[in-house]
Amino acid sequence: MPYNLTGIMEQAEKLNRPVVQQLDEILGTPFKVLDDGFVRVVDYMGSDESIVQAARVSYGKGTKKVSEDRGLIRYLLRHQHTTPFEMCEIKLHVRVPMDCWRQWIRHRTANVNEYSTRYSLAIDASQRAGEDHWRMQSKDNKQGSEGFFDLAAGKKFSDQEIQLQNLARSVYEERVNAGMAREQARKDLPLSTYTEAYWKVDLHNLIHFLWLRMDSHAQYEIRAYANVIGNEIVQRWVPTAWEAFQDYKVKAASLSNIEIEIIRSLNTHGAEAAKETARRFGLLPPDGQELKSNRERNDIEEKFSSLGISIPWK
Amino acid sequence: MPYNLTGIMEQAEKLNRPVVQQLDEILGTPFKVLDDGFVRVVDYMGSDESIVQAARVSYGKGTKKVSEDRGLIRYLLRHQHTTPFEMCEIKLHVRVPMDCWRQWIRHRTANVNEYSTRYSLAIDASQRAGEDHWRMQSKDNKQGSEGFFDLAAGKKFSDQEIQLQNLARSVYEERVNAGMAREQARKDLPLSTYTEAYWKVDLHNLIHFLWLRMDSHAQYEIRAYANVIGNEIVQRWVPTAWEAFQDYKVKAASLSNIEIEIIRSLNTHGAEAAKETARRFGLLPPDGQELKSNRERNDIEEKFSSLGISIPWK
Amino acid sequence: MPYNLTGIMEQAEKLNRPVVQQLDEILGTPFKVLDDGFVRVVDYMGSDESIVQAARVSYGKGTKKVSEDRGLIRYLLRHQHTTPFEMCEIKLHVRVPMDCWRQWIRHRTANVNEYSTRYSLAIDASQRAGEDHWRMQSKDNKQGSEGFFDLAAGKKFSDQEIQLQNLARSVYEERVNAGMAREQARKDLPLSTYTEAYWKVDLHNLIHFLWLRMDSHAQYEIRAYANVIGNEIVQRWVPTAWEAFQDYKVKAASLSNIEIEIIRSLNTHGAEAAKETARRFGLLPPDGQELKSNRERNDIEEKFSSLGISIPWK
Amino acid sequence: MPYNLTGIMEQAEKLNRPVVQQLDEILGTPFKVLDDGFVRVVDYMGSDESIVQAARVSYGKGTKKVSEDRGLIRYLLRHQHTTPFEMCEIKLHVRVPMDCWRQWIRHRTANVNEYSTRYSLAIDASQRAGEDHWRMQSKDNKQGSEGFFDLAAGKKFSDQEIQLQNLARSVYEERVNAGMAREQARKDLPLSTYTEAYWKVDLHNLIHFLWLRMDSHAQYEIRAYANVIGNEIVQRWVPTAWEAFQDYKVKAASLSNIEIEIIRSLNTHGAEAAKETARRFGLLPPDGQELKSNRERNDIEEKFSSLGISIPWK
Repeated sequence: MPYNLTGIMEQAEKLNRPVVQQLDEILGTPFKVLDDGFVRVVDYMGSDESIVQAARVSYGKGTKKVSEDRGLIRYLLRHQHTTPFEMCEIKLHVRVPMDCWRQWIRHRTANVNEYSTRYSLAIDASQRAGEDHWRMQSKDNKQGSEGFFDLAAGKKFSDQEIQLQNLARSVYEERVNAGMAREQARKDLPLSTYTEAYWKVDLHNLIHFLWLRMDSHAQYEIRAYANVIGNEIVQRWVPTAWEAFQDYKVKAASLSNIEIEIIRSLNTHGAEAAKETARRFGLLPPDGQELKSNRERNDIEEKFSSLGISIPWK
Repeated sequence: MPYNLTGIMEQAEKLNRPVVQQLDEILGTPFKVLDDGFVRVVDYMGSDESIVQAARVSYGKGTKKVSEDRGLIRYLLRHQHTTPFEMCEIKLHVRVPMDCWRQWIRHRTANVNEYSTRYSLAIDASQRAGEDHWRMQSKDNKQGSEGFFDLAAGKKFSDQEIQLQNLARSVYEERVNAGMAREQARKDLPLSTYTEAYWKVDLHNLIHFLWLRMDSHAQYEIRAYANVIGNEIVQRWVPTAWEAFQDYKVKAASLSNIEIEIIRSLNTHGAEAAKETARRFGLLPPDGQELKSNRERNDIEEKFSSLGISIPWK
Repeated sequence: MPYNLTGIMEQAEKLNRPVVQQLDEILGTPFKVLDDGFVRVVDYMGSDESIVQAARVSYGKGTKKVSEDRGLIRYLLRHQHTTPFEMCEIKLHVRVPMDCWRQWIRHRTANVNEYSTRYSLAIDASQRAGEDHWRMQSKDNKQGSEGFFDLAAGKKFSDQEIQLQNLARSVYEERVNAGMAREQARKDLPLSTYTEAYWKVDLHNLIHFLWLRMDSHAQYEIRAYANVIGNEIVQRWVPTAWEAFQDYKVKAASLSNIEIEIIRSLNTHGAEAAKETARRFGLLPPDGQELKSNRERNDIEEKFSSLGISIPWK
Repeated sequence: MPYNLTGIMEQAEKLNRPVVQQLDEILGTPFKVLDDGFVRVVDYMGSDESIVQAARVSYGKGTKKVSEDRGLIRYLLRHQHTTPFEMCEIKLHVRVPMDCWRQWIRHRTANVNEYSTRYSLAIDASQRAGEDHWRMQSKDNKQGSEGFFDLAAGKKFSDQEIQLQNLARSVYEERVNAGMAREQARKDLPLSTYTEAYWKVDLHNLIHFLWLRMDSHAQYEIRAYANVIGNEIVQRWVPTAWEAFQDYKVKAASLSNIEIEIIRSLNTHGAEAAKETARRFGLLPPDGQELKSNRERNDIEEKFSSLGISIPWK
C-alpha cells in the first residue's frame, strides 16, 4: 500500500523556530576586539537540536530511541558527518582591519556584504598595535612572531605609527575635499584601516574557520577575532557542538601512517623495532651514519613529546 | 580624532531577530506537490528588511534618507547587486521523487541532508503520473513535452506503471527480508521512488533556482515544486523581493547585441536598414539569395513577436 | 541486450590534450597592466572544442549531425546552458595592487595562491596613478568617477603620493630591520602596494567576472585587468565563445517586465496606450499630476534612448 | 627604488604546459569498473611540480634553496596547506549507475556535464551485481554490508534482478515508442541504470573525495570507482602527492582530546592514572560501579588496539 500522505500531513507538527535564549540576550551587542574592532551577532538560524534533527532526517526515525542528542552530535563530529552542522547559520557584523579582513575572506564558503569605500568615506580609524604589543619575528617559523619588543622600543614604534597613519589620513581627506573620486582617494590608506562587514556562514564552515584561525600559528589579529567568535558566541549558541568541537578538532591531533607504524612497533616490539621502522621510512639513517636534520622527524618528535611517548632514537 | 568605539557600543541597538508573521503561520505545514510529495518550511533567517539592512552596510548611512526600502530592493535586483539577497536563508523539508531530486541537487550552492536508504528502509511510495498526465514528446524541442495522451492510453500506462512499481517494491522487500544489505537491495527501485531531504539555501541562490525551474522549459515535475516554493513560500517570506524578482527576472527578457542593433536600425532608419543590419550579422543571405533555416534567427523572430516588434524581413 | 562495453572500449579513441596554438605562443608572457602590474597565462585546459564536446555528452550523439560548433556554442550561451563552459580552465599569474585584489577575490568560485607577506618581504612597489590620471568624483553616481584633474593638480597629487608611499616604505623597512615580525611590520603599508597571485578559474566563472569587471561601472583599476584578460587572453584561447560572449552578455541588455509591457503597448496600440501602461506600473502619475523624480523611470528612459525607442511620455 | 617590471618581463621565462607522460599514455583509455562502467581521463592541468610552483608563489623565492619538492609537498599536506593542491585539475569521463552517481555528486566542488535522458534515450544498461556479489546487511553497522550470500541464493537474486530490469526496460521502450516524452518515460527505470558524465575537479577536492570514498565504510560501488581513480589515475598523475596523501590522510588516524589525555596519563603515570582520566571524561563509571555500553569508549578501544596501546581498563 502506498505511503499515506494524508497521515503525514495531519501529524505534521506545527513548527516554531528554534530559539537560543543565551544568544538572544547578546543579539546586537558588540564584543570588543583589538583596539577598535568588534564582532556582534545580527541573526542566527538553528541550535544544537537542529543538528540532531537534520541527522535524523538522514538516518530515519530509528535513531530516536538509541541515542541521546549529545552522543549523536559527538558521533557526527568524530566521524566526519559534517552536513548536519551546515543546517545552522549565523550572521555577524564585524569591524576588522583591512589587513586582517584579507585573510578572513579567503574562506570562500560564506556570504559577505562589506562597507564600500567607493561609495562612502573610509572609516576614520586604523588599528594601532599598543606600545607593549609590537611583536618580534620568530626565528623558527618564518611566518610567525615570538615575544614583544620592550616598552622603550614599543613607544618609538607607536609614535611612528601614529605619525604615518595621521599623514595617510590627511592625504586622504585632502584628496576627497579636492573632489577626487573616493575609489581612488583611498588607494594609499594603510592596510590597518578598519572596514566593516556582514558575514554569514553555516556552522560547519564556521567551525573549520575557527579551527584554522584559533590555532596558535594563526596571526595574532585574526586569532583575536576567532577567539571571541568561538568563546563568546558559538559557545552560547550551540554549547554541545562547541564542546565536541573542542574534543575532536581544537585539542585533537592527527597521526600519520609513519607515526602509527612507529607507535605500533614501539608498543609491540620495543624501541629497537621502532627505530628500525623509522629507518624504513627514511627518518633515520642506516645504523652508524650521522643523523641529518629532517623537518618531518622534528614534527614527529614534537608530537611524541606532547603525548608522553618516549622517542625511540633519543 | 579616531573613531569612537565607545559611542558605537552605547548606541548599538539591542537587536531582535526579524520575524515574518505570514511565514511563521505556515511553519511546518506541508504544501502538497505531485501525488505524494510536499514542501514545508522548517526555519528561516531574515526578511525584506534584512536585504535593505545589508545593502546599507555596503553603502553606508547616507542611503537611509534618500531611498525607501522597496525602491532599494528593486534597484539592487535591476543592477545585479546580488550579495544583499544572500543575507536571507531558508530551510525546507521536501519530499521528492529521486528522478526529480537528481535535477534539484545539480544546484550546488545549498546545504543538504537527505534521507539515507543505506541506513533506513526506502520510503514506500513511488510517484505516479495520473491517468490524465502522461505527456507526449515535443516535436520542436528534443528535451520537452507537449500535450497529453488521451485517457484510454493513459489508463493503460498507469496500469503498467503500478504493476512495474509493485514488482520493484516486492523484489526490494524480498531482498531486505532475506537479509540483504539495504544499500544493495535498493538498486533496482524505480527512479520515481520518493526521497526526503532538508534543503537550506540563501535567497539569491533560491531565486536563481526558481528562475531556472519555474521556466516553462523546465521539466513538469520540478516545475511543480518550484511553483509551490515561489508562490506559496517566497511570496509570503519576502514579498517585496518576490515582486521585484517577477519584474526583473521571471517576466524579463534579454536582448542580444544583434537584436539591439536591429531594433536600433529599425527605429532610426526603418525596415530596409534593419534588414541590412541582419545581413551584416549573417542572419539573412545577400539580397536575392534563398533564405536558409537558422536557429538564431528563429529565436529572434519569436522574441520580436512577443514584443510586438514587426519583423523587418517578413 | 545489454550495452556492449567491449565495443566501447575498443572504439574509445586514444585522446590527446586539446592544444590552442595561439595561447601557447604567449604562455608565460606578461601583459603589462597599470604602472607596474601584469597578467600572464601559466596553464590552461580545454578550448572551444571542449565546450562542444561537453555539450554533446549531455545531449548525446544525435547533435553531431545537426549543428556545427559555432552555432552550438552560441545556442548554449543564449539559453543559459552554462555548465559546458565550466569544462575549460585557466591559470593566471597576476600582479595587482592590494586595493584592487580585494575586489578581485570577492569572486569566490576560483582557486587562489597569493604571495605571503607574513612569510616574505612585501613587494617593493606601490601602484602610482600617473599625473594625468587622478579622477574626479562622479556627480551622478556616488560610487563612480568622472573626468580627470588638470595636470597642475595632478602633479601635486603625484608628489604627495610618492612622499607618502616612500614614508610608508621606510617605516616598513625600519620595522623589519629592527626585527619586527613581518606579519605586523606590514600593517601600515598603503593599499596600493602590489601583491602577486596565481588565480585559477573555469571559463564560465571567468566570463561572469569579465562581464562585471569590464563593465563601465567597474572601478578603473580592475577594469584595466579585466580588459587585458578578455581581449588579450580569452580571445586567443576560445575565440568562438568570446565572440558569443560579446553578443549575448557584454553588448546585451535586459528588458524588465515593465519595459516589455510598455514596448508591446507602444508597438501595438501607440504612445497613449504605452503611457497608460507606464501609469499602471506607477512610473507616471495619474493624468494631470506633476511628474516626480523616479530612479526606475530614469533607467528606462536611458535604455529606450540607446535602443532608438521614442519615450512615450516625452 | 621601485620594483623593476621591465626586468621581470625580460626574465619572465617562456612557459610550456607541464606534461605528465605517464598520464598522456592512458589519456582516453577507459578503466573498467563494476560490470559495465568505466573511468577515463579526458584532460588534465598541472603536475607535482605545479603544486610546488604554487606553494612558492605564496612563500616567495627563499624556499627554493631549503626544501626539495618532495619534502615541500609532504609538508603542505601535513600542515593542511591545501590551496596549492587546488592548482591541479583533472577532467574524467565516467559511466556510473545512477544510484552511485547520486552519492558522487553530493560533492559539490566540481564541474559536471551529465548525459541527459530528457534529450536522449537512456543508456541501455543497468548495473548487475554478479551472482557471487550479493551482500548481507552488517549487524554492527546499520549502513554497511558484511559478507556475501552463497551462490545458490545469489543465483536466485540475479535471475530476479534480470527479470525486473528487463521488464523496466521493456516498459520504457514501449512508452518511448508510443511517443511519450523521454523525460517522463524514464521515471520507472531502475536506480541501477547507467549514466555518463564529464566530471572535472581540482586535486584538493579530488583527494577529499577519495579520502571519503576509498574508506572501508563507503559503499562498495562508489569505492570501486574511487579505487580506480586513485590507484590507476592519480598515482600516475601526481605520484609524490599521492604518496603523501597515503601517509597523511588514507592511512592516518586522528586522536581526540580525550584519547590524547589518556595516552599521556598512561605514558607518564601508568594505567591507574589513565583510568582516572577516562573516568574524568565520563568514559568509565565511578569505581565499583558497573560498566555500561558506550559508543565513544568502543571507538577508543578499537583505535588503541590498532596502535598496540594496551587499554587501561581491560
